[in-house]
This record gives sequence, structure tokens and C-alpha cells, in this order.
Amino acid sequence: MTRIRMDLFTSLDGYTPADQTAEDPMGADWGRLTEAYAATRTFRKNVFGDTSGEGTTGVDERYAAAFTDGVGAEIMGAAMFGLHSFPDDPDWKGWWGDTPPFGTPVYVLTHTAPRPSIPMDGGTTFHFRNAAIADVLAEATNAAGGQDVRVGGGYRTARDFLRAGLVDDLHLMVAPIFLGKGHRLWDELAGIEATHTVTSEVAESGTIHVTLSRA
Amino acid sequence: MTRIRMDLFTSLDGYTPADQTAEDPMGADWGRLTEAYAATRTFRKNVFGDTSGEGTTGVDERYAAAFTDGVGAEIMGAAMFGLHSFPDDPDWKGWWGDTPPFGTPVYVLTHTAPRPSIPMDGGTTFHFRNAAIADVLAEATNAAGGQDVRVGGGYRTARDFLRAGLVDDLHLMVAPIFLGKGHRLWDELAGIEATHTVTSEVAESGTIHVTLSRA
Repeated sequence: MTRIRMDLFTSLDGYTPADQTAEDPMGADWGRLTEAYAATRTFRKNVFGDTSGEGTTGVDERYAAAFTDGVGAEIMGAAMFGLHSFPDDPDWKGWWGDTPPFGTPVYVLTHTAPRPSIPMDGGTTFHFRNAAIADVLAEATNAAGGQDVRVGGGYRTARDFLRAGLVDDLHLMVAPIFLGKGHRLWDELAGIEATHTVTSEVAESGTIHVTLSRA
Repeated sequence: MTRIRMDLFTSLDGYTPADQTAEDPMGADWGRLTEAYAATRTFRKNVFGDTSGEGTTGVDERYAAAFTDGVGAEIMGAAMFGLHSFPDDPDWKGWWGDTPPFGTPVYVLTHTAPRPSIPMDGGTTFHFRNAAIADVLAEATNAAGGQDVRVGGGYRTARDFLRAGLVDDLHLMVAPIFLGKGHRLWDELAGIEATHTVTSEVAESGTIHVTLSRA
């Protein structure tokens, strides 16, 4: 049974950075927000290509290692792919390097004209879809072949799926910092404890892993 | 060395109820927010006068038992005392019963005319002060005799002390619910990790105890 999963970063005061630019696509505070996660052995290996085996191995690593487990397809916004950064370059293949860490079909939501799919090394293929999220989700679910679909982000994509009630498993990585500004992720979650079980776990890094799972 | 302590309740989305009325002085969601804490053995004993020994005994209880440890004086807002509920009754002694759980001098901040202090059973004396928070804090610190001063709340009092940078130890009891409305407690904490160490612990109830301590 396919479940719709989402993993998001937030500060303790519920913010995710809103100051993204073409030059700084994640925003100035992104590094602080994701520091503990980026330090894990799995992230260093899968995203940075670090094969030294270095990296943290505690609770954060356990979540990082589970990040791609059982995911058969991914959906992300155009900004997370990097489409807005070089909109006029038809050869631009996004921020994720030659071997993106997904290893699955990745559906990139876009409001621009269709562009051809891009097969990448390591099993990732980027598809670009200008369609309703429910339709893209149906296509991704079919492509996942019984495995889960992950909605990767960014904020606007996450918000749209949360508002539509489409997320079965939401994993929040809550950094022990207080940004005081940004997008208010929490506003999309009011009352979610009525349908989703909330469990929390604190990592050695101080990150609070909050998981909301639909019964 | 006296430290200024504060213990506050918040939902995971950073809200504390804003719908207090004279009839419902804590607001409609207060019960859900404080449910785990009110279930502890110490709270049942100290606040409800329950001497049966019943109540939870896990992580929440450990914090509840520490609540009054080493506190030599308390400061609270007029609403938390209950001053607004029966403003015209000179004999009204607040919401805390004949034997309030403080056992120390309690300074009640008020903008109304001075009223006489009220000695209660169990060592609590309510004093009413229409003065700047720094002045009341100085008086409370003196009364505490080297022990800590706790700022009890409610929200406006907490906000004023946080904005003034007066809180050394802030203990947040974060309930695993998402209220979606209320006073935004988090807004007062932006950047506090620069001066305060953040540690978190999850209780059996799902409550996340977040402690911010000035070095």
C-alpha cells in the first residue's frame, strides 16, 4: 500500500527559510537548519559522494538512512529541482549533480512549458509536469509500483500537499534554533493530531524528530 | 546566585491560548495543553490536593517535582492570579485555593490601584504591585534570599520578561497538538540560541520538554 511521505526541516519556532534567490536557492539559514542532517554518514555519502565512511551515526543517521527506504517515486517543486535558477538553459539538469540521490522517477512540478524528461546516472529520471498535484500524485503512485511516494518540497509544494490532506507520513526535523522569520510551516498543521499520531524523538544533535502518521 | 526561571506551556505550533475570558480564565484549549502535566503525581498533590499518591511518575513528573524546587519568590500577571475575574470583590483571593501551591511570596503585577497583601495557608503571600517589571523583579529577588525567582505567566507577563531578556532558564512544555491559533509564544524567542543552550527531552506522554538556559 503506497503511502505519501514528506520529510521537512523547520526551526523550533516553525519557520523554514523564505529568502531563497536564484543565487542562494535554499536561503541564508538553510545551512543552520540542516546542519545535523548534513553531518550524517548517509547524507555525506548519498548527497556529497563522501565514501570515507565519516559522519554521525546516531539518531539523525537512523532517520537519514531511512530517508530513501521504500520510496518508489519522488515529487518536488521546480525551485527544489533548480528550474528557476537557469530558466533559459535547456541543458541545465538541476542542483542534484550527475548522480542524484533519489534513484527513482522524480516528478518536478512546473508552471512553465513542458520540457523533455532527463535520465540521470543512478536510476533517477526527472520528469516535468504542469498539472494538478492530485494528477501528478496519481502518476507518481503508479510509477512507484506499490512503494511509497515522497513529496520532497520545497515549502510551497509541501504546503499544497498538506492543505489537500494528501500526506500520510510527515517527518519534521526540528532544529534547536529560533529563526524568527520565514515561511510558517506550522500553520498548515492545525488540528492534524485528530488524524495523525504524533511521536517525537530527540537526537544527540539536539534535533527533534517529530513524526505525524495517519492511522 | 538567583536565576530567573519560567515554565510555559505551548502547542507544537507555538501557540498558547488567547481566548481567555472572565468565566474561562485559561482559555478553551488550556486543558488539552496541560493535560500531561496535570496528570502528574506532584501536580495532583500540590494543586488538586490529591494525597492518594496517584498520578504519572515518568519524565513529566520529574519536571513537575522540580517545579518549585529552589524557588524563593514568584511573579505573575493579574489574570493568572484571577484579579480580572472578580475585580470589584475586595475579598477575592484568586484561583489558587486556600493553600496555593507556591509557598513563597507571590508578586502579582497589576495596573489597578494597590490592594493589601493577602497571606494564605502554606506559606504563600500575595503582594500586588503596580510597577515596572524590573522593579518588581528586584523586590522578588531580594525576597527570594538567594533562591530563584519564577515568573509564572500568563502570556503577557511571560512576553514582557522574555523581551527584556530577563529569563535565565526557560522550560517549555510542548504538547503534541497543533492549535493553529492563539498567542505566538515563539515570536519572542528569535535568536535565543545565541545566549541560551537548548536541550530537549520527550516524555512518555508525548510532551516535549525544551529547556533554554543562559550560560
